[in-house]
Amino acid sequence: MFELSRRLEFSAAHRLWCDRLSDDENRRLYGPCANLHGHNYVLDVTVRGDVDPVTGMVMDLNVIAQVLDEVLFRAIDHRNLESDVPWLAGKVTTAENVVAAMWEQLRPHLGPGLHRMRLYESPQNFVDYSGPGAA
Amino acid sequence: MFELSRRLEFSAAHRLWCDRLSDDENRRLYGPCANLHGHNYVLDVTVRGDVDPVTGMVMDLNVIAQVLDEVLFRAIDHRNLESDVPWLAGKVTTAENVVAAMWEQLRPHLGPGLHRMRLYESPQNFVDYSGPGAA
Amino acid sequence: MFELSRRLEFSAAHRLWCDRLSDDENRRLYGPCANLHGHNYVLDVTVRGDVDPVTGMVMDLNVIAQVLDEVLFRAIDHRNLESDVPWLAGKVTTAENVVAAMWEQLRPHLGPGLHRMRLYESPQNFVDYSGPGAA
Amino acid sequence: MFELSRRLEFSAAHRLWCDRLSDDENRRLYGPCANLHGHNYVLDVTVRGDVDPVTGMVMDLNVIAQVLDEVLFRAIDHRNLESDVPWLAGKVTTAENVVAAMWEQLRPHLGPGLHRMRLYESPQNFVDYSGPGAA
Amino acid sequence: MFELSRRLEFSAAHRLWCDRLSDDENRRLYGPCANLHGHNYVLDVTVRGDVDPVTGMVMDLNVIAQVLDEVLFRAIDHRNLESDVPWLAGKVTTAENVVAAMWEQLRPHLGPGLHRMRLYESPQNFVDYSGPGAA
Amino acid sequence: MFELSRRLEFSAAHRLWCDRLSDDENRRLYGPCANLHGHNYVLDVTVRGDVDPVTGMVMDLNVIAQVLDEVLFRAIDHRNLESDVPWLAGKVTTAENVVAAMWEQLRPHLGPGLHRMRLYESPQNFVDYSGPGAA
Repeated sequence: MFELSRRLEFSAAHRLWCDRLSDDENRRLYGPCANLHGHNYVLDVTVRGDVDPVTGMVMDLNVIAQVLDEVLFRAIDHRNLESDVPWLAGKVTTAENVVAAMWEQLRPHLGPGLHRMRLYESPQNFVDYSGPGAA
Repeated sequence: MFELSRRLEFSAAHRLWCDRLSDDENRRLYGPCANLHGHNYVLDVTVRGDVDPVTGMVMDLNVIAQVLDEVLFRAIDHRNLESDVPWLAGKVTTAENVVAAMWEQLRPHLGPGLHRMRLYESPQNFVDYSGPGAA
Repeated sequence: MFELSRRLEFSAAHRLWCDRLSDDENRRLYGPCANLHGHNYVLDVTVRGDVDPVTGMVMDLNVIAQVLDEVLFRAIDHRNLESDVPWLAGKVTTAENVVAAMWEQLRPHLGPGLHRMRLYESPQNFVDYSGPGAA
Repeated sequence: MFELSRRLEFSAAHRLWCDRLSDDENRRLYGPCANLHGHNYVLDVTVRGDVDPVTGMVMDLNVIAQVLDEVLFRAIDHRNLESDVPWLAGKVTTAENVVAAMWEQLRPHLGPGLHRMRLYESPQNFVDYSGPGAA
Repeated sequence: MFELSRRLEFSAAHRLWCDRLSDDENRRLYGPCANLHGHNYVLDVTVRGDVDPVTGMVMDLNVIAQVLDEVLFRAIDHRNLESDVPWLAGKVTTAENVVAAMWEQLRPHLGPGLHRMRLYESPQNFVDYSGPGAA
Repeated sequence: MFELSRRLEFSAAHRLWCDRLSDDENRRLYGPCANLHGHNYVLDVTVRGDVDPVTGMVMDLNVIAQVLDEVLFRAIDHRNLESDVPWLAGKVTTAENVVAAMWEQLRPHLGPGLHRMRLYESPQNFVDYSGPGAA
C-alpha cells in the first residue's frame, strides 16, 4: 500500500466566530482569532492504494492537481471564508471544520482512495483528518 | 559594519483596493487580490552599525524584539489591515505601502541604525525597503 | 476523529553521554554527539478527538499553547538539558528519551487526548512518540 | 514504541516513461513529466522499536546515516535514474516505484525495524511507503 | 526606492560539461556534477523603482508573474537544460551562466527596472546576478 | 559581476557572557541568552567575481565546500563555542563576533573574492558581515 500526497497553497481571510454564542463568549473563547485576519494556508491531500503495474502510479498526480484546482482553489483562494464559500456557510471556520468541509467536496471526485488531509493554518497550527468513518 | 536582523511573523487580512479608482478599474488592476483575503506575513527588520567592543552587539536583540512586539505586532497581528490599523488608513495595502508605513512606525524607536526591511506576503512575493532617503 | 497539532520551538544545549559507560565507550557509541553542542529543537504536539459541534474545536489551541509554554518552554528554552532540567536528570538526552520525558510532563495537563509528539533535533533527525501504552 | 527518522537529500534526473506504452500514450499519460527533468529529492527513513535502556536509542543514528550514504546516496546522487541505477532498470521512475525499490535496497541493512519511508520529489509531491507486507 | 520580488520554481535536468575540455578535464573540474542530474530550481526576480502613488505598486505583480511564466517557465520547466532550451545552447549550465541567460530573456520584457536575480540550485547553492553593467 | 553562495549547517552550544561585566550585568544585558544553550546554525558564504568564460564558474563550488568543511565545520560542529574553538577564545559569542571570527579564518583560503557572510542563529535572528574594510 502506498500513500501519495499533493500539496495545495491558498490565501484566505477568516475569523473564529460562533453565531450561537454571545459577543463576549466569542471573544473569551477565541481570543484574537475572533478578529478577522488571514493565512497562507497549506493543504496536503493524500490518496492510498496499490500501484498500477503498468503506469507505476497510485493515481495520476495531474488529475489530483486538476481536481484540487477546480474543486477547492477556485472557490477559496483570495477569498473571505466567512462570506464567499457556500459550503462553509454557517460553520465556525476552525481548521477542523474547514478540513472536514473540504473532505466532503473532494470525496466525490477522488473516490474511496482519499485517505487523509492535513491543513496548516501556519507552520505552528495544523490539523489531520481521515474522514467521517475513521475511528 | 554589521547588519543584524530580526524576524517577526503575523497573520492579517487585507485586499488591494484604491478608492480613487472605479470598481471595474480595481478589479482589472488587482485581479483576485481585490477580494478580501489574508496572509501569514513575515517581516525581517535589519539594523546596521559597528559592534560594541564590550557587549559584542550592534544593538540588543531583546530590545529590537520588544519594539517589534509593542509597535507592530500588537497593532497588526490577527487584524484586518483595511480597517483596524490607524497608520494604514486610506492606503492601498500593497506590500510596498505596508512596509513603508511600518518603517515610519519603527524609525523613531530604532533610530538611524534602521537599515532595511523585507516584508513577505508569501514565499512567492516580497518587498525590500531602505527608507525614504534611499536612492 | 481529528488530530490537532501545535508547534513549539526552543534552543538548548545537550550531549549524548551515558554514566554507565566508560569514556571510551561513550565516544565510540555517540561519536561527535558526545561533545556538548546544541540545537534549535522543534516539537509538534498532537491531540486527538471529536470536534465540539458548538466551538468547532477538538481542544482550544490557546490552552494547548499556554500549557506548552508553562510546562515545557519555561523549563527548557535557553537551557542546558544536561544540568538545568530536573525531569531529565540522569537520562541520556537522546531525542527518544527527551520526547518521552516531555510526554510525562504534558500528559497530566492535556489528558487522554494527547496522541502523538514529534521532536526534531534538526530537519535531518526526528522522533515520533505515542506514549508508553502504544504498541 | 518510538519511530526514529533520518533525512537524506539527493539530486537526480528522471522522466516518466513506460516502454510498454506508445509515445503518444506516454505523452498523454505523463504530460510534461515524460520529458527528462530532475529534482532535489528528499527522503525520510523511519525505523520503529523500543528504546535501549542503556543507550537511550532505538537504533544508532550514525549507523542509519552511514547505511543511507553507502546503499543509496552513492548510487543515486548526481545521477540519471533512467540509466545509471541498476536496481531501477526497467521501472517507470514514479515516486511510488522509486521508494519501493529503495525499500528493497535498505531492508537487508536496517532489518525488520524499517517501518516507513517518505520520498519528496518536491514540497508539492510526496509518497509514503511501509513495505510490501503493509495492508 | 523599493525592490519587489517574485519567486518562480521549476524542475529541470542538467550537467556541468564544457565541450572545450577533455572528458578527463571535465570529470576532474566538475566532479559528480559532470553526470546528468537535476534540481528543483528556485528563482527570485527583483524589480526596483518608486511606488506609483495611485496603485501603490512598483510594478504589477500579476504582470511579472505572467512574464516569468511565458518567457521562462514554459521553456525550462520539466526540461533538460542540455538540449531543450535554445538560449542555453553551447553554454556550460552552471548557475552563473543560467541566471545570466535568463537575465537576457527577461530584460526586454521587464525593462530597466529589472534589478537582481537570485537562482537557487538547492538551498545549499545559489547565485545572485545584477546584469552585465553591474560593477 | 556575480555573487556565488554556499550554505553550511552546524550544531553548537554557546552562551552570551562577557568576562568584563559582573554576573548581574551579564544577566541583565543578555537575559536568557546568558544561560548555556545551543543552535542549529546556518552560514551562507558568498564570493564575488566575474565568470570564467571556459568553466562558467566564479569559483569552484567543490573547493568552497571543502574549505568550509576543513576550516570551519571540523572546528565548530558538535562543539561548545565557549571552550572548544581556539579562535573564539575570550570573545562574547554573539552572532556578530562569531561571523567576524569566521571571516578571519576563511579570508586566507578564499582570497579577496570573499564578499559577504550571513550567519543565522535561528530563522528569527541573523547577521550579515562584509569584512573589516566595508563601510
